[in-house]
Amino acid sequence: MPDARATDDSPRFSDRLLDAIDRVGSPACVGLDPVEAALPASVRAAHPAPEAAVRAYCLTLLDAVAETVPAVKPQSACFERLGPPGAAILHEVCTHAARRGLVVVLDAKRGDIGVTAEHYAAAAAATGAHAVTVNAYLGPETVRPYPAAGLGAFILVRTSNPDSDSVQSLPLADGRSVAEMMADHVAAIGTGYVGRRGYSDLGAVVGATKASDGRALRGRMPRTLFLVPGYGAQGGTAEDVRALLDSRGGGVLVNASRSVIRAFEPGDPDWARSVTRAARAFADDLRRLGNR
Amino acid sequence: MPDARATDDSPRFSDRLLDAIDRVGSPACVGLDPVEAALPASVRAAHPAPEAAVRAYCLTLLDAVAETVPAVKPQSACFERLGPPGAAILHEVCTHAARRGLVVVLDAKRGDIGVTAEHYAAAAAATGAHAVTVNAYLGPETVRPYPAAGLGAFILVRTSNPDSDSVQSLPLADGRSVAEMMADHVAAIGTGYVGRRGYSDLGAVVGATKASDGRALRGRMPRTLFLVPGYGAQGGTAEDVRALLDSRGGGVLVNASRSVIRAFEPGDPDWARSVTRAARAFADDLRRLGNR
Repeated sequence: MPDARATDDSPRFSDRLLDAIDRVGSPACVGLDPVEAALPASVRAAHPAPEAAVRAYCLTLLDAVAETVPAVKPQSACFERLGPPGAAILHEVCTHAARRGLVVVLDAKRGDIGVTAEHYAAAAAATGAHAVTVNAYLGPETVRPYPAAGLGAFILVRTSNPDSDSVQSLPLADGRSVAEMMADHVAAIGTGYVGRRGYSDLGAVVGATKASDGRALRGRMPRTLFLVPGYGAQGGTAEDVRALLDSRGGGVLVNASRSVIRAFEPGDPDWARSVTRAARAFADDLRRLGNR
Repeated sequence: MPDARATDDSPRFSDRLLDAIDRVGSPACVGLDPVEAALPASVRAAHPAPEAAVRAYCLTLLDAVAETVPAVKPQSACFERLGPPGAAILHEVCTHAARRGLVVVLDAKRGDIGVTAEHYAAAAAATGAHAVTVNAYLGPETVRPYPAAGLGAFILVRTSNPDSDSVQSLPLADGRSVAEMMADHVAAIGTGYVGRRGYSDLGAVVGATKASDGRALRGRMPRTLFLVPGYGAQGGTAEDVRALLDSRGGGVLVNASRSVIRAFEPGDPDWARSVTRAARAFADDLRRLGNR
């Protein structure tokens, strides 16, 4: 049975993302991590209810970056924290982003087995997202329901937080690190979901702050799309990203959250314009990598 | 600052759970994995909308097992699949379960870093659940926000699915398996969250189908509560559970889902009574372990 997303109407995730990156000329992804305490004062004043304020902030943010970056990454936890209304707002945000031509990677870090993973995939697809982040500690086969549902999946391989070393850096008896073992699973299973442009719908999360490990991981996943967190506020630089590029000088989607979506003083009445400016600077930084 | 849950009004999770197990005399947990296709015909007829049918089924299930088992484990994915209304139904289900005296373990397998993990913990606590399942591939420190929010957390160590071997069974250079490494993290961090009865609010998920590994894991986590999936429909037996008991003959919460919540023919008008009967048989099976 052909993959539903492999038609012209509904392209595979990998092709959709690479086309969007080419269109904009930069692999920049803006992370949507809305928290009530960091909203612009004008949004809070206009929307006293926290859920309404988060909704308005996100929709305006999307409009502010839609011409500047190819993709956004809503953080599911920030919406779940709003309680039941948060699920509806997440859906509206993903749908609005897709309508504005943005590729939507839902950062949900889901991971479960069998039919439960199918439920998670169906739930993520129903939000309007094109891809989801996935934790495969339960086993490599647990990632299959996401591409089967027409979604891209970025599997956590090497994350950007310092504490991840205590799990992901540990050496296995066979000489690989735990992260390298996960990378080999991603590369092997990913061969089943390769699009027209030669990349798989199964990607990997590889943090910008782990660039030295990242080079070795790129060797093990030569045709895998990397979702790269840790840029900007977390300390990762364009130089760090360079180590993660593939042999064609591409294959990455680099995320920055706070440095873009909070690029304003709380009282800034024109905060959306400040966000656009920060998104443009971020996209330009990455454009200078020569990455397409 | 004393833990908010360590007062008489709001006991620590570990104490709450062990007291509930003692009260019932069995460590049986019923998994709530509602799917539309497996609902009783009478519920579907009375509630044509799928969300309303799932809601009614779950609330009746809770009443059917509340006197028989100490705990339930709602599967977040099944509720997320219902879209935005699912979040409200999950909240209602958890709240109703708690009101019926059941300990509620939300099976959400969340896992993220820093403030994002705090959002997940806050979201889980807001549902009314007492504990949540957590994936610590991102690092052992990422589990702390859950007990900090007054929740128990069961960390995925050794899961019941066959494919988990491809990650969790692999030997590290230091001789431990990946699962044993995770177990050591759980035991070490768990010492910070020990209740009146000597158990930690940080528990571990150790599948009944991996009993041979489970014995070694119990050795590394002598005072850790194990949430044990894989019983019943997945093939785990009371004998398998015996290998997971601690030196006092306790320390486990054993989950069965399908074998209890689908213990009826689709047309059974008295399906809730069949569920009660199945829950009682399950609880009795475990009672025979001599486990308290």
